Amino acid sequence: MSSVSGKIFQIATFGESHGPAIGVVIDGVPAQLPLSAEEIQRELDRRRPGQSDLSTARNESDLVEILSGVYEGKTTGTPIALVVANCDQRPGAYDKLREQFRPSHADFTYIAKYGFRNPEGGGRASARETIARVAAGAVAKKVLKQLAPDLDFSCYVESVADICMDADENFYDRSVIDASPTRCPVPAVADAMAAKIKAIRASGDSLGGTVRCKIRGVPAGWGEPVFDRLEADLAKAMLSIPATKGFEIGSGFAGTLMTGSQHNDPFVIGEDKKIHTASNRSGGIQGGISNGEVINFRVAFKPTPTIAKTQQSVDVRGNACEVVGKGRHDPCVLPRAVPIVEAMAALTLVEHALRQRATAPIL
Amino acid sequence: MSSVSGKIFQIATFGESHGPAIGVVIDGVPAQLPLSAEEIQRELDRRRPGQSDLSTARNESDLVEILSGVYEGKTTGTPIALVVANCDQRPGAYDKLREQFRPSHADFTYIAKYGFRNPEGGGRASARETIARVAAGAVAKKVLKQLAPDLDFSCYVESVADICMDADENFYDRSVIDASPTRCPVPAVADAMAAKIKAIRASGDSLGGTVRCKIRGVPAGWGEPVFDRLEADLAKAMLSIPATKGFEIGSGFAGTLMTGSQHNDPFVIGEDKKIHTASNRSGGIQGGISNGEVINFRVAFKPTPTIAKTQQSVDVRGNACEVVGKGRHDPCVLPRAVPIVEAMAALTLVEHALRQRATAPIL
Amino acid sequence: MSSVSGKIFQIATFGESHGPAIGVVIDGVPAQLPLSAEEIQRELDRRRPGQSDLSTARNESDLVEILSGVYEGKTTGTPIALVVANCDQRPGAYDKLREQFRPSHADFTYIAKYGFRNPEGGGRASARETIARVAAGAVAKKVLKQLAPDLDFSCYVESVADICMDADENFYDRSVIDASPTRCPVPAVADAMAAKIKAIRASGDSLGGTVRCKIRGVPAGWGEPVFDRLEADLAKAMLSIPATKGFEIGSGFAGTLMTGSQHNDPFVIGEDKKIHTASNRSGGIQGGISNGEVINFRVAFKPTPTIAKTQQSVDVRGNACEVVGKGRHDPCVLPRAVPIVEAMAALTLVEHALRQRATAPIL
Amino acid sequence: MSSVSGKIFQIATFGESHGPAIGVVIDGVPAQLPLSAEEIQRELDRRRPGQSDLSTARNESDLVEILSGVYEGKTTGTPIALVVANCDQRPGAYDKLREQFRPSHADFTYIAKYGFRNPEGGGRASARETIARVAAGAVAKKVLKQLAPDLDFSCYVESVADICMDADENFYDRSVIDASPTRCPVPAVADAMAAKIKAIRASGDSLGGTVRCKIRGVPAGWGEPVFDRLEADLAKAMLSIPATKGFEIGSGFAGTLMTGSQHNDPFVIGEDKKIHTASNRSGGIQGGISNGEVINFRVAFKPTPTIAKTQQSVDVRGNACEVVGKGRHDPCVLPRAVPIVEAMAALTLVEHALRQRATAPIL
Repeated sequence: MSSVSGKIFQIATFGESHGPAIGVVIDGVPAQLPLSAEEIQRELDRRRPGQSDLSTARNESDLVEILSGVYEGKTTGTPIALVVANCDQRPGAYDKLREQFRPSHADFTYIAKYGFRNPEGGGRASARETIARVAAGAVAKKVLKQLAPDLDFSCYVESVADICMDADENFYDRSVIDASPTRCPVPAVADAMAAKIKAIRASGDSLGGTVRCKIRGVPAGWGEPVFDRLEADLAKAMLSIPATKGFEIGSGFAGTLMTGSQHNDPFVIGEDKKIHTASNRSGGIQGGISNGEVINFRVAFKPTPTIAKTQQSVDVRGNACEVVGKGRHDPCVLPRAVPIVEAMAALTLVEHALRQRATAPIL
Repeated sequence: MSSVSGKIFQIATFGESHGPAIGVVIDGVPAQLPLSAEEIQRELDRRRPGQSDLSTARNESDLVEILSGVYEGKTTGTPIALVVANCDQRPGAYDKLREQFRPSHADFTYIAKYGFRNPEGGGRASARETIARVAAGAVAKKVLKQLAPDLDFSCYVESVADICMDADENFYDRSVIDASPTRCPVPAVADAMAAKIKAIRASGDSLGGTVRCKIRGVPAGWGEPVFDRLEADLAKAMLSIPATKGFEIGSGFAGTLMTGSQHNDPFVIGEDKKIHTASNRSGGIQGGISNGEVINFRVAFKPTPTIAKTQQSVDVRGNACEVVGKGRHDPCVLPRAVPIVEAMAALTLVEHALRQRATAPIL
Repeated sequence: MSSVSGKIFQIATFGESHGPAIGVVIDGVPAQLPLSAEEIQRELDRRRPGQSDLSTARNESDLVEILSGVYEGKTTGTPIALVVANCDQRPGAYDKLREQFRPSHADFTYIAKYGFRNPEGGGRASARETIARVAAGAVAKKVLKQLAPDLDFSCYVESVADICMDADENFYDRSVIDASPTRCPVPAVADAMAAKIKAIRASGDSLGGTVRCKIRGVPAGWGEPVFDRLEADLAKAMLSIPATKGFEIGSGFAGTLMTGSQHNDPFVIGEDKKIHTASNRSGGIQGGISNGEVINFRVAFKPTPTIAKTQQSVDVRGNACEVVGKGRHDPCVLPRAVPIVEAMAALTLVEHALRQRATAPIL
Repeated sequence: MSSVSGKIFQIATFGESHGPAIGVVIDGVPAQLPLSAEEIQRELDRRRPGQSDLSTARNESDLVEILSGVYEGKTTGTPIALVVANCDQRPGAYDKLREQFRPSHADFTYIAKYGFRNPEGGGRASARETIARVAAGAVAKKVLKQLAPDLDFSCYVESVADICMDADENFYDRSVIDASPTRCPVPAVADAMAAKIKAIRASGDSLGGTVRCKIRGVPAGWGEPVFDRLEADLAKAMLSIPATKGFEIGSGFAGTLMTGSQHNDPFVIGEDKKIHTASNRSGGIQGGISNGEVINFRVAFKPTPTIAKTQQSVDVRGNACEVVGKGRHDPCVLPRAVPIVEAMAALTLVEHALRQRATAPIL
């Protein structure tokens, strides 16, 4: 029941790293939405490995096919099934790892839960699972564009290890973000990040970092107190991404150091004659509901657990063992995490947009 | 649909600050669980105002009544309805605020969403709503005790503004935590926090801080990838609490500064001959599933938005206005946030415990 | 998880026959709907016992109180809690039945499922549980009236035992239906039913029958294939009512005796220049979606299992025993079933109305 | 949201008649269940067209492929994706029907709901959609076999038009049922049905009928009052199958003609020293919960709406038109409905079996 998400815009994902395919069924998409495989592919291409020399050398083309729910270029209102075949299957590379519990991977807990696991490429615990999220997110974005034409994302790598952008309120365009393979929009910082990632790869180790996500054009009124507050659903969406360790909205943990009079966002009448807040420590959400300002949050990603160094561990029989890193993995997942964060944010927003459509006052 | 939470252990909460009552219906509780109003009351008493001179002067006894689902001291397996009548209603105190948007409150967004709101005491957006969560959490804890007898919480205030405990791995007992009205288990730090809270109250301002929650005795195997990872559901539960701004599990944001070889938790055979991790930067969860180690997370609470100082704002007609703080509110919500964090954690865990019961391998 | 129903217009019911109260929490009601306790009470008054000499002698006033979600006569968009206190508690009357399994009641199966039960007045298995459904249904009807002003119900007793109305296409008004205590709109048939019910009560036995429900003014387009077809959700709603044994939509079982050419409903252009069907064997639903014609279904209710006659049975220790009917029950539930059928139909329709609002094409 | 069904054993189906594929994602299947494509194929083969000269001449091999969730012959506990490619696509045959509303089909209502439809072969409204149900049902049956080894189905055609078996309590074996292409287990009746079907096909018309389903070996205790009573969920499952018009459990509509003393099922101690009912008018379910007796229900199917005769109708522009039947359809869907009824019953039961596992008393 846990690979299904959403109540109205509902997705069901499936697939293992080295199985025949990975995919998603999307139910609840309004009919008559123009949709093509090319649009979905564009989002997947931002996620796939091998985009730059900072990423894994795996060659995964990750081509999406639409199996249902679209007719003559438009959605029919019935479930949309998207499938990406797995091409580059090299199960042999993982053979020795079948019986070892890799540190800070899901090997041990999958055995604890299911008593049995598919070890090839991490099985269901592989980050390839996020292909389905990005594909579904592409559809979510299209629906959002219909409901809120000004809605736009500025999602980028804010830090890699201790290389960190200064906090700012710029709304970086996607073209600026994608200009660097690090997906950091400030060139000097991006260069430092790239250098650090190359160095850590050379040393056989890995790095973590943070992704910043800003979303503008979200109308006031999305989000549902008390349990499905917009920031709560965003937090869940982000912490459901592999390797995440934290989430902050608006002022976040730093906000705990301020007083109320420093922290409160005064309401003002803006140049557009509409009500705004003079500051945005709320991160665009108040009382669990969007207030029309830029939604602004940050997500922490731990360093990739797969490293080339030899590590001490235990095997399935409870014996000490040495885990020797093989496989082909990213020394730093941050650049490729950006489209995943965006996709999960889009899925969260579209759910709340449709809920608001369902239960808005009937006037 | 958003005051309902959980799929198996399902709760539906209701009630406004100054309405007749606040309550919760709990469905999915296994039958034959001994349950009394007294046990639930004990948890509510930890949440209610007026426990110490650090809190609001409001006198709310918050007595719970069981309306259904319990017969002769045991649950019947049918819905349990718990109701707390609202006694101390003084709507007059809020009259002037009806038409003003208080900064960083939910006044503006409730109007944006519903076009209409109950302004008395904050209506549904009042923190009194959390009474229902604590009551339901008390029932969740009892079920957890049956399923995992060693499961226990150590949940406390780690910081108030810049007064912060050193990070440690102690599992503080509830009696130690409740010894100070700040619910910080280190007396010297607790005293500093209390002094700071009293000083800020005198100045008409407010403070934020962080709550640390550790949970031991959670069996390996709870949590459901990919969307309902245990940390994802904990993050959602925490960010659904009013005034929260951030969530970290295990190493959290600080973990992004480490390398993979520093961050990974090596597997070892413990003194109990079972598999453990030598460190716990994973925070007790790997791949979205509990690994049997202590679950360890942290939650950020912003400073209370209600302050005694006069603030600039806008009213419902779009005119500038001055908001003058009245009402009786906590200058720092942290001490009373502890039982709420615990309750939401218990509700998250019991849901996953019952899910694991449902779908564990059939052997 | 099974006393919660609906995904958008979501209700959670609670309460046992002889507990403190029965009630319901309704989430997902659009804000700004005018709502008063009196309107809900009117529906409850149609359900309560003691309306006529055909019903049980129990005197249950069943007064509803609104605990939340309504402010100054309008819904706030937050959960509406409705509670009806149980007044006429006479648990003594049931003492001897505690350890006996009454034939065709839920005593045995509740023990089989929960291992334990509240025996007073049937506990949760009492038909008093339907109070919560009728109360929620009253709110559903109000929302429906906003969304589809022409929507109206004609729901009545079509048969009691072998006393049966001729099938017809009349849309009887509620005043005509309620003119007879049997709720059969044809006076001659109603009189025969009343006589039969009085005679069976005198003999200490009971009767069953059928309820016909017609609903006009449902716009074309409600209902969601493939699993939540409108007739599927109506069937579930009806079979969830205590004592029901069957459901038919449109031509029903009799339709299986026709050929396709006899059964198909030809499309025609009506006098209103809109597309209609010349006949309505589809019962107003085609492909799981309303087609704008009158929705027309029938529900079978078994004879009341509580009878005054002595019956052979088994007790909780597995010994044969004699069950002697006491309590005060209706010899025929049909007249009081009418408002329950209506309420469940309204709850089903409002859910689909809001779903259609959520996912209709965005144009 | 309506092609997703179940809360714990959750399925999401997709696919149109003439699209690339039809399939289902199944989430919530316990790990370590042996599962092969062959087992699923066996169930699909009972559903596919062209099994006998009573069925359509379409040649659909309907081969299933497992895309995920199974590793080395066992389920992994992660989502199982099953896909059946559509082979025999002849869209040309339907060209003329694109703009006509076929009587008693879903053409008109799909346009009313979605404003747009895939007309090829009926699109999503095609009975080919049930392939996904049968595939998922095969997996459900395997889980049921683990949880209740004695659970077995006897599901057959009881009537075709007015050719009807006498009611009996026999539990016919699947081999007996499948011995006739009509799937009626009484040879003389089966022969009469076959003759009637051939005659109606020759005349260009079609027939309806009823399916009887008996299920033994269901433990007492499955089903959840008040809304998710076992008979309510069975009713919904059955009425979600295309072409169904009615559902009866146990005594059904005929039971409304009996008195309570005739209808009640006396409890007795059986030869196995366990508690049973002497009769089974309850149909194996009391108070919404299985009582351990044979579950026994009946489903009405209308005559196939597609006929060779010319029919009057209206086209999408609102003009009168003549619909001339083409395509290749079954003159009577009953024989092929049997595996679909079984599958939907299995899906309903497995959901309740897992729910009972989740919330049974913790002892």
